Amino acid sequence: MIIDRLYREAVEKSPICVGLDTKLEYLPKYLLESDKSIEEKIFEFNKQIIDNTFDLVACYKVQIAFYESLGLEGLKAYSRTLKYIKEKGKISIADIKRGDISSTAEAYGKAHFQGDFEADFITINPYMGIDSVSPYFEYMDNEEKGIFMLIRTSNKGSEDFQELLIEDKPVFMKVAEKANKWGKSFIGKEGFSSLGGVVGLTYPEEFLQIKNNNPNTFFLIPGYGAQGGKGEDIKEIFKDGICGVINSSRGIITAHKGKTEDKSFVNFIRQNTLNMKEDIENWQR
Amino acid sequence: MIIDRLYREAVEKSPICVGLDTKLEYLPKYLLESDKSIEEKIFEFNKQIIDNTFDLVACYKVQIAFYESLGLEGLKAYSRTLKYIKEKGKISIADIKRGDISSTAEAYGKAHFQGDFEADFITINPYMGIDSVSPYFEYMDNEEKGIFMLIRTSNKGSEDFQELLIEDKPVFMKVAEKANKWGKSFIGKEGFSSLGGVVGLTYPEEFLQIKNNNPNTFFLIPGYGAQGGKGEDIKEIFKDGICGVINSSRGIITAHKGKTEDKSFVNFIRQNTLNMKEDIENWQR
Repeated sequence: MIIDRLYREAVEKSPICVGLDTKLEYLPKYLLESDKSIEEKIFEFNKQIIDNTFDLVACYKVQIAFYESLGLEGLKAYSRTLKYIKEKGKISIADIKRGDISSTAEAYGKAHFQGDFEADFITINPYMGIDSVSPYFEYMDNEEKGIFMLIRTSNKGSEDFQELLIEDKPVFMKVAEKANKWGKSFIGKEGFSSLGGVVGLTYPEEFLQIKNNNPNTFFLIPGYGAQGGKGEDIKEIFKDGICGVINSSRGIITAHKGKTEDKSFVNFIRQNTLNMKEDIENWQR
Repeated sequence: MIIDRLYREAVEKSPICVGLDTKLEYLPKYLLESDKSIEEKIFEFNKQIIDNTFDLVACYKVQIAFYESLGLEGLKAYSRTLKYIKEKGKISIADIKRGDISSTAEAYGKAHFQGDFEADFITINPYMGIDSVSPYFEYMDNEEKGIFMLIRTSNKGSEDFQELLIEDKPVFMKVAEKANKWGKSFIGKEGFSSLGGVVGLTYPEEFLQIKNNNPNTFFLIPGYGAQGGKGEDIKEIFKDGICGVINSSRGIITAHKGKTEDKSFVNFIRQNTLNMKEDIENWQR
């Protein structure tokens, strides 16, 4: 099961997921102003980051929006980045948050679990219900893939729908319950399911509530760094052991901004990754 | 306002939205077995459909999943299809159902309202709340774009979350209320907002409930044909006039299957479009 591999990477390297939310403005000048195509520039930036962090982290998350915003060239870089992550023996999470009726979800499965855009995990939005989720199950049974379902996001707007109460329970707890139930068929050796959940770090108490309800759910945890989450927030969540990977995007991939515009940029990125690793480990002890 | 243009197209041509959910298996053999690239084949199929229906319909909806499932080549065909719809003076709806935090939504706005993948409208998933929706507003103010927000889908799984009750009101009514509120800033001459809503045809009573609550919402209505909706279901919804466009995908673009494998396939597609137009008009009278 892919989730066993992810768990072991998180335990052996660190529970860090590097978010490759690459924008052109993040590129150091030596690369941005080079003669390369946009595809080459974006891919080269990502490759340098992967080459200089792969021994420290569990996985990479690639947010497709930033590649789509650069059009077809951006998506070529997206495709090459996913292939390179695989080539380095690392795990990729395609952050695509797809959610649609079953025939469309089948097409998304084909699109993101094989071919040009193949990833190990994808994120999905469950608003449309079970038939928008179940088309991915065949890849989880047979082809060693996994999904992370949006449960509780940490943005301000999450109050609009996720926090609405249904007989004293917020909507996100109803989603957590479904993740628990639907995930039971995909539990690996380590006790976690290949159907994981996205829960933001911003509300630690609610995180614990979800965690207690979902003993087999492995979490993709955004919200560290730029979005306000700190190592100490992880203390309680990881007190019985690692149960997720913590994503950091800007906190890592813009570490060099204002400091260097040359090839040494990767040193700053590696240093920030090491700092984050230490921050998390301090609170795990 | 783009919504005024869409409304007039719906009134003057018909409230039909042709869903270009193109799969390779839908292509007639003469095209599928030709020497063209996959990009060319898919684009040619779409172009033929557009050329033979543009005088009968309000707009075209392009479901990105089916193009993504063909990788980079598929997305080239997707891009060319959107450009061709524009070239023909028609309105495009990119069915992408995106939903993400604000910085990511900004990237999606850039991706789908300009450049290679520029469309007139996009569909969005509001589960993450206002900050996943508001980044599109600047395009609605300045650049004549619009969005359709998922309110109530017509698939079986919609019961999992959309039907949950919050003090006697289902979640989807809460979403409808937000669509109403957020849409107030984008109301055009015809009284409809460029922030529209997706509501399936399968539950006509609930549709009326939403419609009564949302007098300024223009609807994108899936569920006709292959998904079970009929012209008579539209009677009540359109009784005070046209307030949306009705999507048909397979019902139109696979009209030729089992009947012809040559260039005459477009005749069957045009005929099914005419049949749908008649079906809707019968019930409008």
